[in-house]
Amino acid sequence: MKNDVSDNARAAAEMISEERLWGRLMDLAAIGARPDGGVCRHALSREDIEARALMIRWAEQSGYEASVDDAANLWVRRPGLQADAEPVIAGSHMDSQPAGGKFDGAYGVLAAFEAMQAMDDAGIKTDRPIDMVAWTNEEGGRFDRGCTGSSVWSGAMPLEGYLDDIGIDGVRLADALQSTLEATPDLPRRPRQFAAHAYIEPHIEQGPVLEAGNIPVAAVTSIQGVRWMNVDIFGTAGHAGTTPLKGRHDAFQAAHRAVAALNALMDDPDDIVRFTIGRIIVEPNSPNTIPEKVMFSIDFRHPDKSVLERKCSQIDDLLKEATAPCSFKVTPTTQMDPTAFPQDIVDRLAASAGALGHECAHLASGAFHDALYAARRCPSAMIFIPCRGGLSHHPDEWAEPAHCAVGAQVLAATLVDLSTN
Amino acid sequence: MKNDVSDNARAAAEMISEERLWGRLMDLAAIGARPDGGVCRHALSREDIEARALMIRWAEQSGYEASVDDAANLWVRRPGLQADAEPVIAGSHMDSQPAGGKFDGAYGVLAAFEAMQAMDDAGIKTDRPIDMVAWTNEEGGRFDRGCTGSSVWSGAMPLEGYLDDIGIDGVRLADALQSTLEATPDLPRRPRQFAAHAYIEPHIEQGPVLEAGNIPVAAVTSIQGVRWMNVDIFGTAGHAGTTPLKGRHDAFQAAHRAVAALNALMDDPDDIVRFTIGRIIVEPNSPNTIPEKVMFSIDFRHPDKSVLERKCSQIDDLLKEATAPCSFKVTPTTQMDPTAFPQDIVDRLAASAGALGHECAHLASGAFHDALYAARRCPSAMIFIPCRGGLSHHPDEWAEPAHCAVGAQVLAATLVDLSTN
Repeated sequence: MKNDVSDNARAAAEMISEERLWGRLMDLAAIGARPDGGVCRHALSREDIEARALMIRWAEQSGYEASVDDAANLWVRRPGLQADAEPVIAGSHMDSQPAGGKFDGAYGVLAAFEAMQAMDDAGIKTDRPIDMVAWTNEEGGRFDRGCTGSSVWSGAMPLEGYLDDIGIDGVRLADALQSTLEATPDLPRRPRQFAAHAYIEPHIEQGPVLEAGNIPVAAVTSIQGVRWMNVDIFGTAGHAGTTPLKGRHDAFQAAHRAVAALNALMDDPDDIVRFTIGRIIVEPNSPNTIPEKVMFSIDFRHPDKSVLERKCSQIDDLLKEATAPCSFKVTPTTQMDPTAFPQDIVDRLAASAGALGHECAHLASGAFHDALYAARRCPSAMIFIPCRGGLSHHPDEWAEPAHCAVGAQVLAATLVDLSTN
Repeated sequence: MKNDVSDNARAAAEMISEERLWGRLMDLAAIGARPDGGVCRHALSREDIEARALMIRWAEQSGYEASVDDAANLWVRRPGLQADAEPVIAGSHMDSQPAGGKFDGAYGVLAAFEAMQAMDDAGIKTDRPIDMVAWTNEEGGRFDRGCTGSSVWSGAMPLEGYLDDIGIDGVRLADALQSTLEATPDLPRRPRQFAAHAYIEPHIEQGPVLEAGNIPVAAVTSIQGVRWMNVDIFGTAGHAGTTPLKGRHDAFQAAHRAVAALNALMDDPDDIVRFTIGRIIVEPNSPNTIPEKVMFSIDFRHPDKSVLERKCSQIDDLLKEATAPCSFKVTPTTQMDPTAFPQDIVDRLAASAGALGHECAHLASGAFHDALYAARRCPSAMIFIPCRGGLSHHPDEWAEPAHCAVGAQVLAATLVDLSTN
């Protein structure tokens, strides 16, 4: 464990261009731009394909080789002196929420690219190759289960397990994946899994701590655990004007009782539980027809695995009581246990920040990230930068150009030292 | 007021063909047929246009003249001896709920057509013309506000007030109307409003009373009042994993509290209140984003106008308290006061049924119908026939062929006597 960074690391950090990085962030945000200033760039969509084409063009302009794997994870390599050494990887994802912002995901990908260019500008050769990565479908905004690309790369999930997933637009994931891969027929194909030396993911905090403390950067120590599931409630349709309320099997009213019971289950005076019902789909969704079917999503997160397990074990009994006389079905979609990042790589990030003169916090992540899966394959950690008001998954999401540059400096310095034997 | 029917009326009723009427019901149900046996035939849709074309073909085959008005109400005339006399009108609508059945609306239109044919078969000439009508967009399943065509004809609403309505498929009503009218360029154009002698609307009961009492037909005395409105709730989107629950402006949780408060307001031990939340639209509707906006519909009905007014007057205050810290907006969409049909026309329907040997109930309608608007322009009433389990607005909606014929017999007899001076 070093307490400082090498001269090369410092030199690379000094070549980070705030202007160049910001320009790329704005260029990428133009793809899938929403009229309200936000971004809608669903995974494997036309916009995603356009974003990939832009990234590949930038890679070619810098003399880097782009490649892709079967899960459509996009890789850009800056070669090392030892061509076959396990690479050091940095990146994040380019898909967004349907009403997302310019920085979630995009920042991590472009900070990694900026770090590689800064090394070029500083004339630095590393022993290990450096790989930038843009993982496929982190958000789960189009296809329910997020972190598709990173979970396949990590070996946690077989790609085949995702292929039949149906997107909110009715498209099968396999078909969207094929369209995306066919858009870049000339890219070399990487293996689905390969050994790596380390993975670093820069990201906006998506919470209020750094901004409130006026701290420009954080080394992320851990990610809280996640349980996602869909609840389907089955009732009986009928005429709203004629059917007496007492005899109804109204799927929406059953869902209403279910939400009340879930709110009680998730009640937490310490406000550590994160519980969100973000998607509701009603059928037939006509004002004068009693709802026949309601689907709602549950997003439940907690840093303590035992809390996740205990509360989830109560959901079935609770729904049984709340939804009667309707019936129900619970379908888990994503399950990730809390993950602690290795101490030495977290320390290295903090040391890089310190050596470059930046105050550095240590934070746990409330959101999950591709790093959660990457950590299963190689030592991993994350860099957080502040975002305005802690706001994310929102068109108004915002990070300051100076903070974007600080995160990229810490990344560049850390990548240089991680990739030097 | 007669206590019996004329010989002509009886002769027309005797020529009602159960088989011909049933065949037409099944032919019409094939247009927009759902795999589950139901029907989805949205107003002014491709399927609606196809249904109109079929109806026009049948009219031509029988030597009747079809015509249309600016609201795309479809008219089919059986001439009277006095060409210029105010017509007697019978019919209903051909649009359906998205997951609707074969009988709601369609039965009334085809019973009217069958009644006209039965008069032909009996060689009866009436003094007044008889008009069959298929009103535009009764259901409000595509364009929120139902009874579009009948409300325009009645003079209650100007057509221009509907033109900017946006359908659930994003299409403007004016454009859908234009496509529908352009599909039948050769049809004569009727005035938007004209004087009429009477209006009779046959319909399935959409409730359980006739079936339970083993009664084949009812004269409908009144229609309960309706208040439809949409509630928009505005919150703030945010990341489901990072945003503490205490600081959230979660539009869905605000809607949940609003529904709890509305349920309490609508609580009715006598089970007379009809209160339904049938449509819910969440934005951005992503599992891991706090909902920014929720729209839900309210369908509230009661036979007593004062109850409608008293409860509606409390909704604003109640929502203000329930939805804080989110904001909200209430948009009334349809408002119809309870309507009693004229006693003499109700009595005439009951007399026709009695003279034909059918037990006849007197019922109030839980659903609203085009007759509610037609009653503003001319003496109106309705005929109900039983439907299985009282089920309607559902693919399993069902009426027995024999009951369909009974309703058409009562209609035919009543139309003959109403159209004879």
